[in-house]
Amino acid sequence: MTYNAFHPPVRTLMGPGPSDVPPRILEALGRPTIGHLDPRFIDLMDQVKSLLQYVMQTENPLTMPVSAPGSAGMECCFVNLVEPGDKVIVCQNGVFGGRMKENVERCGGEAVMVQDAWGSPVDPQKLEDALKAHPDAGVVAFVHAETSTGAQSDAKTLVEIAHRHDCLTIVDAVTSLAGTPVKVDEWHIDAIYSGTQKCLSCVPGIAPVSFNERAQHKIGNRRHKPQSWFLDMNLVMGYWGQGARRAYHHTAPVNAMYALHEALLMVHEEGLENAWLRHRRNHEALKAGLEAMGLRFIVDRDHRLPQLNAVAIPDGVDDAAVRTRLLQEHHIEIGAGLGDLAGKVWRIGLMGYSSRIENITQCLAALDGVLADLGAPVNHGAALPAAEKVLAA
Amino acid sequence: MTYNAFHPPVRTLMGPGPSDVPPRILEALGRPTIGHLDPRFIDLMDQVKSLLQYVMQTENPLTMPVSAPGSAGMECCFVNLVEPGDKVIVCQNGVFGGRMKENVERCGGEAVMVQDAWGSPVDPQKLEDALKAHPDAGVVAFVHAETSTGAQSDAKTLVEIAHRHDCLTIVDAVTSLAGTPVKVDEWHIDAIYSGTQKCLSCVPGIAPVSFNERAQHKIGNRRHKPQSWFLDMNLVMGYWGQGARRAYHHTAPVNAMYALHEALLMVHEEGLENAWLRHRRNHEALKAGLEAMGLRFIVDRDHRLPQLNAVAIPDGVDDAAVRTRLLQEHHIEIGAGLGDLAGKVWRIGLMGYSSRIENITQCLAALDGVLADLGAPVNHGAALPAAEKVLAA
Repeated sequence: MTYNAFHPPVRTLMGPGPSDVPPRILEALGRPTIGHLDPRFIDLMDQVKSLLQYVMQTENPLTMPVSAPGSAGMECCFVNLVEPGDKVIVCQNGVFGGRMKENVERCGGEAVMVQDAWGSPVDPQKLEDALKAHPDAGVVAFVHAETSTGAQSDAKTLVEIAHRHDCLTIVDAVTSLAGTPVKVDEWHIDAIYSGTQKCLSCVPGIAPVSFNERAQHKIGNRRHKPQSWFLDMNLVMGYWGQGARRAYHHTAPVNAMYALHEALLMVHEEGLENAWLRHRRNHEALKAGLEAMGLRFIVDRDHRLPQLNAVAIPDGVDDAAVRTRLLQEHHIEIGAGLGDLAGKVWRIGLMGYSSRIENITQCLAALDGVLADLGAPVNHGAALPAAEKVLAA
Repeated sequence: MTYNAFHPPVRTLMGPGPSDVPPRILEALGRPTIGHLDPRFIDLMDQVKSLLQYVMQTENPLTMPVSAPGSAGMECCFVNLVEPGDKVIVCQNGVFGGRMKENVERCGGEAVMVQDAWGSPVDPQKLEDALKAHPDAGVVAFVHAETSTGAQSDAKTLVEIAHRHDCLTIVDAVTSLAGTPVKVDEWHIDAIYSGTQKCLSCVPGIAPVSFNERAQHKIGNRRHKPQSWFLDMNLVMGYWGQGARRAYHHTAPVNAMYALHEALLMVHEEGLENAWLRHRRNHEALKAGLEAMGLRFIVDRDHRLPQLNAVAIPDGVDDAAVRTRLLQEHHIEIGAGLGDLAGKVWRIGLMGYSSRIENITQCLAALDGVLADLGAPVNHGAALPAAEKVLAA
């Protein structure tokens, strides 16, 4: 094999993540590495924790970034809160609910599945029924924003129901955090995890998590040690400064923390409410364009994530051909369907820094052009005027 | 809390890791993010795998970077190779052998500990005795290069002994890889893990691992699923292209892979043998300086890691005061003692890009100055001439 320097092409990232990373975050990422026990790095860790509390809308002291991708953030919540023999209600309405089931079972727990159609939100009544049928359940887990379908569930209501039945809650906010409201304290979420590469527009590889006092109590009173040493919050807590003295646990990904800090600063500067509004407005413009073209959303209006737009691929259109041409000719990445939706939908992300007007017009123009060129049944030329009308309003 | 942009100080990193990251790796790290399923990224993954095979001296197809720090690399080897009820011989001669024990127990295995003094290598005879006493053991685990003490063990011999007793081997090469010879195929190591932030001089956060055919056979024929979903090699293999088609598993830390690729390229350009030689030569110079100053190594000459120099803190000298002055006045980071050696030793790293002549002279001059200023019993002024004599030879 011949080896050579890797110079990535410049893409416009409009898939389900990673989203576009702004230049100032990339610049922060590449600053000189310092030691993970350097007093200056400890200061940075404190700022990162505090900024994460802001973005997650929580005062939980146990709020920190796990040094691994979002899927490790999920595993972190499960291995700390589920013990062998525990019964966990898992609400599934897409790929990631299925992954939660895997996690429960690998913890030695029993997963009771509550199924909803892919593209629908989790049905609160079904959760209520499952909790009545399984009064011995101790944990309820669900995905707030299903990355595989673009559907958002009513986290506040689901947590309320779980608490009425004396269950802890584990919430997946990988795609929602900083794109739509996620209010950990107001909604009384017990454990939550997210990722950096979606609406935070940071590089992939880190998973913010937060645990409230109830969750922390359970972690501190387990019958068995968590099965993971790397993700054991009792140990990670020591490293991230819950005690008087910071204890070495693992070597933090120093440069990734520079980038996360910069990404969180950007959200703080914009203001969370403004970021939610921007995601909402830009979604309306993209939606107007896509619908004018003749494309159909697979999630009903009330449960649609503004940051992740899943549309049905028109009959007879070659999924891969369209995505390949968008990537090769226009340098735009959109997402394929996942799991049961493979080949059936496209997922168009407007997450974080990718949620910009220029991305919307660029994507609509390119998609319209490629589909028309392939002879797909679209209203050629209708998308941009429709989007511009919304943007001008 | 007031938030502001984080501009790290420029340090000279001569602790136990992270080591200095060269500018060209930092520059690669900050290149534009692309999708983790982008065909160009897939090409990069193939190069990274092939370069890792070179650096690990192996043709194992199952050679790849785990998307998390070295301690997750350790956990990856254990959760895949140890099942509930398995007996594992763990050789401990420092902190990281103790962490291996934790891993075995969290996998539901039984750890049989073979203890050697901290600062000594693992004694092959003790391993042989333990294997005779425990014929039902299935795995032997040991640390090739103990980061907590600076001692190197004879990996080749230990693996031979383990194999004679029909055990698989798990080897920690976090601090040795690219600093001293690590020959996975020639030594028949079954499973090995390392980190990026030591002699590869890459940013921290990624753990290269490799499994040979015997290990892969065990992974493919487990009685139970590994307890970790994130680290399950059966799934990770699908993502890193062992099958015909790449299956989505998690989102790779894209930018960290740019940096790792660049770091591996640098080792390839220098040549592994040259890198080993450079680490050896620079160690000789540092050693001459430290010994001329009057400091004593805690590891005997034959088992000393050239890249990690552990010296006893002279009686009456304030450990923290010295390290703080080195950091604040000279911007040099050296390592404190860990575990049983806390307060007793300093660990001076010459790893990867930190293993440069200018670092040696800078460190010796600063340490000599600070110790003399604190009235420590050192031969003030003797260190630099001694080191220079070696460098001139």
